[in-house]
Amino acid sequence: LLHPDQADRLRVVLVAARNPLNIGAAARAMSNFGFLRLRVVHPYHLSFREARSAVGAPDLLKNAEVFSSVSEAVGDCSLVVGTTAVGSRQVDHPVHPLQDGGALICAHLETAPVALLFGSEKRGLSNDDLSYCHWLMRIPTRQEHDSMNLGQAVAVCLYELIRTQSAPSHEMEPEAASHAKSQELERMIQSLLDALAASGYIKPGTEPATEEKARRLIRRLNLTSSDAETLTGMFAKMRMRSRK
Amino acid sequence: LLHPDQADRLRVVLVAARNPLNIGAAARAMSNFGFLRLRVVHPYHLSFREARSAVGAPDLLKNAEVFSSVSEAVGDCSLVVGTTAVGSRQVDHPVHPLQDGGALICAHLETAPVALLFGSEKRGLSNDDLSYCHWLMRIPTRQEHDSMNLGQAVAVCLYELIRTQSAPSHEMEPEAASHAKSQELERMIQSLLDALAASGYIKPGTEPATEEKARRLIRRLNLTSSDAETLTGMFAKMRMRSRK
Repeated sequence: LLHPDQADRLRVVLVAARNPLNIGAAARAMSNFGFLRLRVVHPYHLSFREARSAVGAPDLLKNAEVFSSVSEAVGDCSLVVGTTAVGSRQVDHPVHPLQDGGALICAHLETAPVALLFGSEKRGLSNDDLSYCHWLMRIPTRQEHDSMNLGQAVAVCLYELIRTQSAPSHEMEPEAASHAKSQELERMIQSLLDALAASGYIKPGTEPATEEKARRLIRRLNLTSSDAETLTGMFAKMRMRSRK
Repeated sequence: LLHPDQADRLRVVLVAARNPLNIGAAARAMSNFGFLRLRVVHPYHLSFREARSAVGAPDLLKNAEVFSSVSEAVGDCSLVVGTTAVGSRQVDHPVHPLQDGGALICAHLETAPVALLFGSEKRGLSNDDLSYCHWLMRIPTRQEHDSMNLGQAVAVCLYELIRTQSAPSHEMEPEAASHAKSQELERMIQSLLDALAASGYIKPGTEPATEEKARRLIRRLNLTSSDAETLTGMFAKMRMRSRK
């Protein structure tokens, strides 16, 4: 996630959002990704009231600021970015794909406030809305179906912002410390071979080949110590029964 | 976007989804990002019918396949990935953050089918569902509010897959072609369980726990088709002998 100061400089601005569920979904994604400053511009008042009073609405929705024009809503921001679908024919603005736009926004957020604008479900941002934007950002959707749901568009854009920021992760190999030691593997392989011998799987004369095959297979598996212990126990039990 | 052949190898699997709006939103995000294969596992039937017949439902929702178990829904996939919230306490599976997991999935999709599982809105994936997963993928949400809306989680994960594609990602999965399919693994797990039952390893009343434990262990192992076949044969032989 972004540093809280940085995240606090982003204003997510919903312009003329129509559906209370979408307003709620946008707020929820903001909360998930740590962006808490929501602004709405001339929302349909009933919708907005409904979204705000919904059960489980995040606090940031209750604290949302309402504006009657885009101009006021972006007033304190030194970078204003509009979001747009692939198909739109905006030739007057530079357009950045989301991947690149995300990095530009994050850089700006280090020192100054940024407004990220989303248009209404039906029409997107109007030409007038766009006239406040420094540039546009485009989510890379399919041409055959380029128009995204508002709540999902907000989620994807905000994810890109925190993604850009995340350093390479540390949790990739949670169990690296517990990789089975060779001796544990050997004990397990022996237990498997005993069970196979008792079951008649190994034909006389083929012991070395079977052992090599089993060992090669087991070694490839990247077992943990506890896996090896479990399997050793299983094989031991199978062998005992075969012997009876 | 991904190459169509590659996108066509991904199965988005919704397990026990409850809300028709969420099912519709998941389908819409799939359509936006070019993934057209939706599978649903024991959905609430009314919800699913409602989602399917909604005005503007994408074709892929109408073509969705319905399954009565996770096992069947992932049967033809050689990589099964579960999605999870930050707070969940899954210690038995490797967990990759979304950024890294996306690259692994894309590499696998170059040659073989992958299932991406999403749990129900309320409970996420159950332990039984998780036992079919090779590893888990985590969306980097805030700890204070980690649970994402289903449709938004699907959108963000799929965006990561198409995003990853713009960067080169080769050499990651050299043996992708021969990864064991889920149905091959299931056959092998069944064969192991039969042998364990015949040997007396499984105490009465502990069958489900043993099955889950065995499945989770086996899924983690990254077996090839030929490994699975070898082991299935070994276990079958052990069981036969135990029965005599």
